[in-house]
Amino acid sequence: MKIAILGYGNLGRGVECAVRENSDMELVAVFTRRNPKDVKIRTAGVPVVSVEEIEAWQGKVDVLILCGGSAKDLPEQTPKYAGLFHVVDSFDTHAKIPAHFAAVDEAAKAANRVAVISVGWDPGLFSLARVYANSVLPSGRDYTFWGRGVSQGHSDAIRRVAGVKDAKQYTLPVLKALAAVRRGEDPELSTRDKHTRECFVVLEEGADAAKVEQEIKTMPNYFADYDTTVHFITETELKENHSGLAHGGCVIRTGRTGFDGEHHHVVEYSLKLDSNPEFTTNVLLAYARAAYRLAQEGASGCKTVLDIAPAYLSPLSAEELRAKML
Amino acid sequence: MKIAILGYGNLGRGVECAVRENSDMELVAVFTRRNPKDVKIRTAGVPVVSVEEIEAWQGKVDVLILCGGSAKDLPEQTPKYAGLFHVVDSFDTHAKIPAHFAAVDEAAKAANRVAVISVGWDPGLFSLARVYANSVLPSGRDYTFWGRGVSQGHSDAIRRVAGVKDAKQYTLPVLKALAAVRRGEDPELSTRDKHTRECFVVLEEGADAAKVEQEIKTMPNYFADYDTTVHFITETELKENHSGLAHGGCVIRTGRTGFDGEHHHVVEYSLKLDSNPEFTTNVLLAYARAAYRLAQEGASGCKTVLDIAPAYLSPLSAEELRAKML
Repeated sequence: MKIAILGYGNLGRGVECAVRENSDMELVAVFTRRNPKDVKIRTAGVPVVSVEEIEAWQGKVDVLILCGGSAKDLPEQTPKYAGLFHVVDSFDTHAKIPAHFAAVDEAAKAANRVAVISVGWDPGLFSLARVYANSVLPSGRDYTFWGRGVSQGHSDAIRRVAGVKDAKQYTLPVLKALAAVRRGEDPELSTRDKHTRECFVVLEEGADAAKVEQEIKTMPNYFADYDTTVHFITETELKENHSGLAHGGCVIRTGRTGFDGEHHHVVEYSLKLDSNPEFTTNVLLAYARAAYRLAQEGASGCKTVLDIAPAYLSPLSAEELRAKML
Repeated sequence: MKIAILGYGNLGRGVECAVRENSDMELVAVFTRRNPKDVKIRTAGVPVVSVEEIEAWQGKVDVLILCGGSAKDLPEQTPKYAGLFHVVDSFDTHAKIPAHFAAVDEAAKAANRVAVISVGWDPGLFSLARVYANSVLPSGRDYTFWGRGVSQGHSDAIRRVAGVKDAKQYTLPVLKALAAVRRGEDPELSTRDKHTRECFVVLEEGADAAKVEQEIKTMPNYFADYDTTVHFITETELKENHSGLAHGGCVIRTGRTGFDGEHHHVVEYSLKLDSNPEFTTNVLLAYARAAYRLAQEGASGCKTVLDIAPAYLSPLSAEELRAKML
């Protein structure tokens, strides 16, 4: 399978690395909006190409992995490039998925391509966990906890506050709430009950710390509904202690069965990830394999992880899977 | 969807109960090999019918849930009834799945029916967890822990020992090993390192306890490779304290990513079940829904959980799933 990358940031670098672990895949090009001369990749012999030239690569690329951001890049890129290649993206703005799906589906169907959107772990593997658990436990309750991990969106929001030079935000699950859910107590939990937010902030010279802290803690949507802690640190400390990209979380469904609801069940799917982007790109590649195979079978249009049978993700054949993994 | 049950034991009773939680399903018949007059079910208005009359129900049943055992019933029943109805079974003899698949596939294809085999949690949801985790973490290690829970097969094995009147066997995970796996230590674990076995045994009048204990502990395949504890108790104690059917376990994959394998990841899927048969039957019904829908689309033949996209399991539409669950 010939894989290409569009966008060489954290995700693009993750794809480059993950391709090496999949013996049925080969990286054939990295496309960039920058000057290709300014982009140094780690894989010898693979060309870095200006995105302006991407059309000429039709027929030379099986699946293009779109490594742009959900806010501005993917809403435009995924429909556009689904007209040229089979594509996979990690679009993660939950509320806008239906609109994104519709745009990508139209483009992919018109060009007879397969596009898989919203791939990663949430949306992605966590969505799978939710759908499986809801299907097998119709009477129950869902919980999702994230962290401890860096939230890029919240870190960006802090950086937009006047007086802030740089920042990192960690999302933390409230361990007491998580333990109650796991014990099967089915608690009713508000936003504040489930997660806390911890911010590490580097101030601009002369900025008013108290004012910055107040502005962060009261920011609507991002922080106002949470118990938030703000730590002011130096730029050196931020680099040394907060440059990791670990993340994780869990999806739990609790439910009851029995004629009188007398039996209780807990289904949990959890992830502990040292590198969020590297894990995410491994998921993208598994769905790239699925996109390629679905296309070979004549499928086209937009798919999500919910539309794809698990066997398509594995390099093993159906016979091997039944014999070894079932 | 019109659901029928073949076999009214623990699983059959679980299906009867689970149908009530699925508003798109209706129980239309319970088929039995016993005299139907001797089988009392809990749902008013549903006929109990001799299996001799099952052929007359073609067209009146959408999916037949096969609730027999894997050792003797299902190898014969699933191919046979896949010639009459769409069927779902819980065949769980891992080593014999390829042969069972082949026999069922032939029968189902010839009759243009959909048959889903080996549905439940292991094989079933645990198989899904293994395939997803292996696909997204190609370089890693798999662990499955079961328990604490009752193993029917091991309880039966003890009951076959001379001098034993009745018995229950619990499989327990070794918590120290499980904790090491979760911490990401990637330990090498033998059979003995992963699980212990605890047996509660009622002796026949005058039986030799020491001899029975020795015979259990040295039984090949079942107990010889484990640290086994044997407790002798009265029949009353067995009934009062050991009649539950709780079970559970977890599938864990640990793996590495990064150019130098520098990042570690842990993916875990776990179940804590108060009633093993009731949870299993809920899984059977979700796949009955999938079988019915696949058949509507023109599919036929044998499928496993690995061949079926998650969206087929849910009563929600594709649009609702994308909007609410992705």
